[in-house]
Amino acid sequence: MQLLEQVLAAIEPLDEAAMAKAQAHLDNLTKPPGSLGCLEAIARQLAGIKGEVPRCLARKTHILMAGDHGVVAEGVSAFPQEVTSQMVLNFARGGAAINVLARHAGAELVLVDVGVAAELPDLPCLLKRKVAAGTNNLARGAAMTEEQAIAGLEVGIKVATEKIAAGTDLLGIGEMGIGNTTSSTAILAAFSGLPLEQITGRGTGADDKRLELKMKAIARGLTVNKPDPQKPLEVLARVGGLEIAGMAGVILAGAANRVPVIIDGFISGAAALVATRLAPLAKHYILASHLSEEPGHAASLKLMDLKPMLTMQMRLGEGTGAALGMTLVDAALKIYHEMATFSQAGISGALEN
Amino acid sequence: MQLLEQVLAAIEPLDEAAMAKAQAHLDNLTKPPGSLGCLEAIARQLAGIKGEVPRCLARKTHILMAGDHGVVAEGVSAFPQEVTSQMVLNFARGGAAINVLARHAGAELVLVDVGVAAELPDLPCLLKRKVAAGTNNLARGAAMTEEQAIAGLEVGIKVATEKIAAGTDLLGIGEMGIGNTTSSTAILAAFSGLPLEQITGRGTGADDKRLELKMKAIARGLTVNKPDPQKPLEVLARVGGLEIAGMAGVILAGAANRVPVIIDGFISGAAALVATRLAPLAKHYILASHLSEEPGHAASLKLMDLKPMLTMQMRLGEGTGAALGMTLVDAALKIYHEMATFSQAGISGALEN
Repeated sequence: MQLLEQVLAAIEPLDEAAMAKAQAHLDNLTKPPGSLGCLEAIARQLAGIKGEVPRCLARKTHILMAGDHGVVAEGVSAFPQEVTSQMVLNFARGGAAINVLARHAGAELVLVDVGVAAELPDLPCLLKRKVAAGTNNLARGAAMTEEQAIAGLEVGIKVATEKIAAGTDLLGIGEMGIGNTTSSTAILAAFSGLPLEQITGRGTGADDKRLELKMKAIARGLTVNKPDPQKPLEVLARVGGLEIAGMAGVILAGAANRVPVIIDGFISGAAALVATRLAPLAKHYILASHLSEEPGHAASLKLMDLKPMLTMQMRLGEGTGAALGMTLVDAALKIYHEMATFSQAGISGALEN
Repeated sequence: MQLLEQVLAAIEPLDEAAMAKAQAHLDNLTKPPGSLGCLEAIARQLAGIKGEVPRCLARKTHILMAGDHGVVAEGVSAFPQEVTSQMVLNFARGGAAINVLARHAGAELVLVDVGVAAELPDLPCLLKRKVAAGTNNLARGAAMTEEQAIAGLEVGIKVATEKIAAGTDLLGIGEMGIGNTTSSTAILAAFSGLPLEQITGRGTGADDKRLELKMKAIARGLTVNKPDPQKPLEVLARVGGLEIAGMAGVILAGAANRVPVIIDGFISGAAALVATRLAPLAKHYILASHLSEEPGHAASLKLMDLKPMLTMQMRLGEGTGAALGMTLVDAALKIYHEMATFSQAGISGALEN
């Protein structure tokens, strides 16, 4: 808890003066003011985070948290639980979508077992930081103790802090965990009070029957656990998951160390909700990437006032959207540093009315 | 006209068998079926275009068409007409947003003067193919003769065909032309019948007064010219523009030569409308990139059943969205070729119900 408290206390506001300076430069570039939308917003945000717009973010690290969920006993997922550990092995071998897209983005991929139900072999790129062999079934009681939730958060904090110390200047997050759209929906419902019919989706591909089981499990979980939306640690512990805790920890460590964190889809969005409820200022260190097909994701982003850049009908997780988003961050920095200004280019300004 | 007719006649349907084969491979990769959304759709479409999913698209060419618009006399634009030629010089010097983003995407940038009102100097990367020194004022009569519209289309066809002959395997389009959101809105209105209040936007940043002048100019142009939506050449000639004709020609040449064409925002969308009305099959060779902030763009994409991948609040043009989209095409090809299959990775399939 001490580590978590230290990190929460270390998160500060953005540098407003640096943002204003970046904005003035953006408005001088040869384009109508604001016409590059998110590319300009990213440059401005990075100025606020780093004190100036960096030339590039050369050391990108994508942290993939894996954990299992006791709620799979309710029949909520189309895939069996062993797929979590099978996919971790697939990540370790380089064959999954996130391997391809992290390479595409030039990001190092770090795998963290924060709560997989199976014992995993020693693998060079896998950090074994298991807090528990999966969570308990949230439909029948608390998924975790608060101590476990804090331990999960601190795994994320430690992994991210180590990578930042080694030079990482852009963090991405993603996850693997059969059943984790169920936990994420429960977290969103707890914080937002939105009706389950509106925010519960099909995850990896649940049919109508499973979707009904999923909604029942979440409804029961909320009734049994009564998570108090004013107590984010309680929400995380009672209806969350260890990989969600780990990702929230990465966000908090990024914010505390002034390193931007690019989030992925619905599940990392739930982690971002937890992180920003624990530390509202953490929001300013988050970059949204894509809008997932999961129906609750738009509501989740809206709660945090984050705008997604990609609408690619993706719903895979792992951080696949975050990795694509990293390439847009690169583009934003190039725009800021490589474009000519109006005076350099000798271009007329806007007409007076 | 002969060249245009030849190109229209050469456009054939996609290769359905190749698309089915690509789909079968995509469904075997270690992810829930369909969960990578647009990345899968791109791979499937490229299979249909090329007969198989290419390993990569190594020679990307972004064609930027520049042309002026007589309708600026109505006070529709926040910037003076000379900005068109000033920006062409900026492109030639490498200082504009499209230079930065084409480099980011690894695309060659080709500049074409198809109708700039000023005389431009000889520049190594500028193709001088001027059909006229700007169009006539569409609010007072036809913007072009049909012969000029055809000449504009054929400029695009020739430039694209030359680049394809030199090895280009992915085309992007973009434009520069003060006043061209006015023409594009008139084209969209002519084809769709949608009310101007719904589809007219602020372009480079028109204030309320200019927006009103713009809507009046378009309304008057539609009344004066009465373009018949069943006659796409007539629509293009009477209310379109030369750079729009040029971009439509690039799309048609891409389709005729089975080379995909990635479009940009609202104005290239108007060119795509013209191209797909001239040759409905051309639609299958188009990739949408971003959703522009221009209010008519969503309606334009919907008319062609195209889905944008990026929602970055951009409204610059030049092809900036198309260039970003090229990087997503690269990602799609890597996904198709680099991911492991379920059997390679030893991963369990979906549960039976």
